[in-house]
Amino acid sequence: MRYSDFTAGQLQSELEKVREEYRMWQSRGLSLNMARGKPGLEQLELSKELFSILRFEDCVADQVDARNYGELAGMPCARQYWAEMLDVSPEQCLVGGNSSLNMMYDLVAKAWTNGLLHSPEPWGKLDHVRFLCPAPGYDRHFRISQSFGMELISIPMTAEGPDMEIVEGWVKDPHVKGIWCVPKFSNPDGIIYSEETISRIAALRPAAPDFVVIWDNAYCVHEILGDYRPIPEILSLCAANGNADLVYEFASTSKMTIPGAGMAVVASSLNNIQYISGCMQAQVISYDKVNQLRQVKFLKDKKHTLTLMRQHAAILWPRFHVFLSALEEIRPLGIARWTDPQGGYFISLYTKPSCAKRTVELCSGAGLVMTGAGAAYPYGVDPQDHHIRIAPSYPPLQDITLAAQLFCTCLKLAALEKILQEKN
Amino acid sequence: MRYSDFTAGQLQSELEKVREEYRMWQSRGLSLNMARGKPGLEQLELSKELFSILRFEDCVADQVDARNYGELAGMPCARQYWAEMLDVSPEQCLVGGNSSLNMMYDLVAKAWTNGLLHSPEPWGKLDHVRFLCPAPGYDRHFRISQSFGMELISIPMTAEGPDMEIVEGWVKDPHVKGIWCVPKFSNPDGIIYSEETISRIAALRPAAPDFVVIWDNAYCVHEILGDYRPIPEILSLCAANGNADLVYEFASTSKMTIPGAGMAVVASSLNNIQYISGCMQAQVISYDKVNQLRQVKFLKDKKHTLTLMRQHAAILWPRFHVFLSALEEIRPLGIARWTDPQGGYFISLYTKPSCAKRTVELCSGAGLVMTGAGAAYPYGVDPQDHHIRIAPSYPPLQDITLAAQLFCTCLKLAALEKILQEKN
Repeated sequence: MRYSDFTAGQLQSELEKVREEYRMWQSRGLSLNMARGKPGLEQLELSKELFSILRFEDCVADQVDARNYGELAGMPCARQYWAEMLDVSPEQCLVGGNSSLNMMYDLVAKAWTNGLLHSPEPWGKLDHVRFLCPAPGYDRHFRISQSFGMELISIPMTAEGPDMEIVEGWVKDPHVKGIWCVPKFSNPDGIIYSEETISRIAALRPAAPDFVVIWDNAYCVHEILGDYRPIPEILSLCAANGNADLVYEFASTSKMTIPGAGMAVVASSLNNIQYISGCMQAQVISYDKVNQLRQVKFLKDKKHTLTLMRQHAAILWPRFHVFLSALEEIRPLGIARWTDPQGGYFISLYTKPSCAKRTVELCSGAGLVMTGAGAAYPYGVDPQDHHIRIAPSYPPLQDITLAAQLFCTCLKLAALEKILQEKN
Repeated sequence: MRYSDFTAGQLQSELEKVREEYRMWQSRGLSLNMARGKPGLEQLELSKELFSILRFEDCVADQVDARNYGELAGMPCARQYWAEMLDVSPEQCLVGGNSSLNMMYDLVAKAWTNGLLHSPEPWGKLDHVRFLCPAPGYDRHFRISQSFGMELISIPMTAEGPDMEIVEGWVKDPHVKGIWCVPKFSNPDGIIYSEETISRIAALRPAAPDFVVIWDNAYCVHEILGDYRPIPEILSLCAANGNADLVYEFASTSKMTIPGAGMAVVASSLNNIQYISGCMQAQVISYDKVNQLRQVKFLKDKKHTLTLMRQHAAILWPRFHVFLSALEEIRPLGIARWTDPQGGYFISLYTKPSCAKRTVELCSGAGLVMTGAGAAYPYGVDPQDHHIRIAPSYPPLQDITLAAQLFCTCLKLAALEKILQEKN
């Protein structure tokens, strides 16, 4: 029975029951963290071999010595690896350091201080820069834009990706300089952009000549259920639309091998790669090529990587499954809906309006740390205060059921408080 | 006998003799590179153990798991390592990725887009920014400033470091926002700043409230001859002068272990570290802590590092010695003077005016690549065209004598051409 169909008396007695449940949880002194999409220990163990796979003697490949300075674009074999993974050419790939986020930040920073290839002037010289933020989205993307003082424009997400009618409207504004996209298993909704959405992005006709699509393909091989599902290759689609320089694509091995200790990549048109490499000459001599070589020796190629990713999925899926199963307890109450992701690292849950912050606060009060409510929206503000991002990857499997049950208690309590407050 | 004392006839016959020497070199088809301060293979071999020293099971230290996201300031043991190396506290150290140059670039970029701790506004908002460049200096430092469109102000180097009277004059200009310093075994002159120079830097009273001393302590333990020579610790000196936030110090393991595959550090006041960490929250989750741990396990502590550095010195010193010995051939001719470095990676050689470019060009024509003449000066322009940077670390020892003999031939030929041209 739905809470909205409860009588006042039923609500009151349910409130008391749930409060008692909550006190019970508090007394257990739990310490659980579902705040970030961090791989758990079992996943890390899949990469044990990384620590011994590369010998000092095996560090010269394609005439490049990984053990010395140079080769800004990365080890040739690493560029080759990413080319296969992303279905582009090695020349379109620049392989960097340990963080794709850092590479995205650096791209925006270069736009700000130097301008991009087609910029009339650096963005930092402009009075006003707007950036499109499909929401809910990845908080760290939005924070990059915010750190440069851009105006963040919230774009509603649909089941097919960003609402393209709204995007196509906004790009007519020359102040709008770009858009953040996570095309596959989007953070946090787990959506795969539809072919139509991807085609419309590739065909955009922005007023700003230096408009940039930041294509964060963070979960390109990160199915947690079922077979690998390719998406249309954006760079060639853009080129076919006369938009060759529109997109910079990013990916990394952080959720394939060891988080924060792998290699990241940027892929784009040859002109963009040449331009950005030129800017980067002032910044760095070369990235850690020894680690690039180590990652490639371990991951080998796409086929082998997909095999490894199935092992990750076998560890991740039970965590999602257990959490989702426990959520079934609250389905009859009509106080929330949630996603059923096939990949990526998150479950998105939508409460009744004005209940998300309170739910997360209650979780925290009983020892369960969740991502701050609102974090998935520009400026960290969810206008409806209704979205919660759930990251079930990190805690040990046996803790997930506990966490989910506690989460349900908090969700019920927050909903009951809200309903009763509205009745009074 | 000095060329300047040669008669016209003697000069002409010497020219023909040296031209014949040069043609002989050309016919040998050499391929040697002394352009950059790259460690050679023998040095790399000192770090063989790095490749197997860190096991998957040993990645948790001080309650931090190096194998997962987080801990922006770096592994606690890495901060502790650098604190001892630089004679500061661990809290003053933020340990980053593989490149101190990248960390310096990032600092200047943050000044440009966000401002530093005491900036009234970001430097990018200003009409004009000047930066002091002691010259000859490190070309990549100057290129960072140049890439942001700053005006580079050349400061003469003395045997004690930058000419401090000139520096003290310039810092009265509020447009002057900082200075590049390599305090120990400066690139390229190999000078150790005197105690007086360091004291005067720590006591600067710049007009710009956000003036920054970028203290690139790249060669902090890089003696090639003799015992370790400490220099005064700049951060505490600044604090004692009421200038606590004036300096950011940088170092890396690139020339201790594997170039471009180690760890870099920035050290500064606690307020600066807190400020810059805040800015970096938008940029990166964490650096490669697995590699930080690997480096620390290998380098252990300062005592052990100094032992390793003596092994590097034992490989490097013969290379310097052989080159310097071969240069003695030209000393009687009075056409060049050069440094006799006790550490670092370079020999600085000063030709007669207007002979450096031609000498380097002649070297290149016979298969010896040198750093471009002028590279050590702002904008790559040596007003006297007289400086050549020699990097003897990379070629195998048996090639250094050849390279030095060829270099002497080129030097003589360039000088003779110049003298004869002036006579006509």
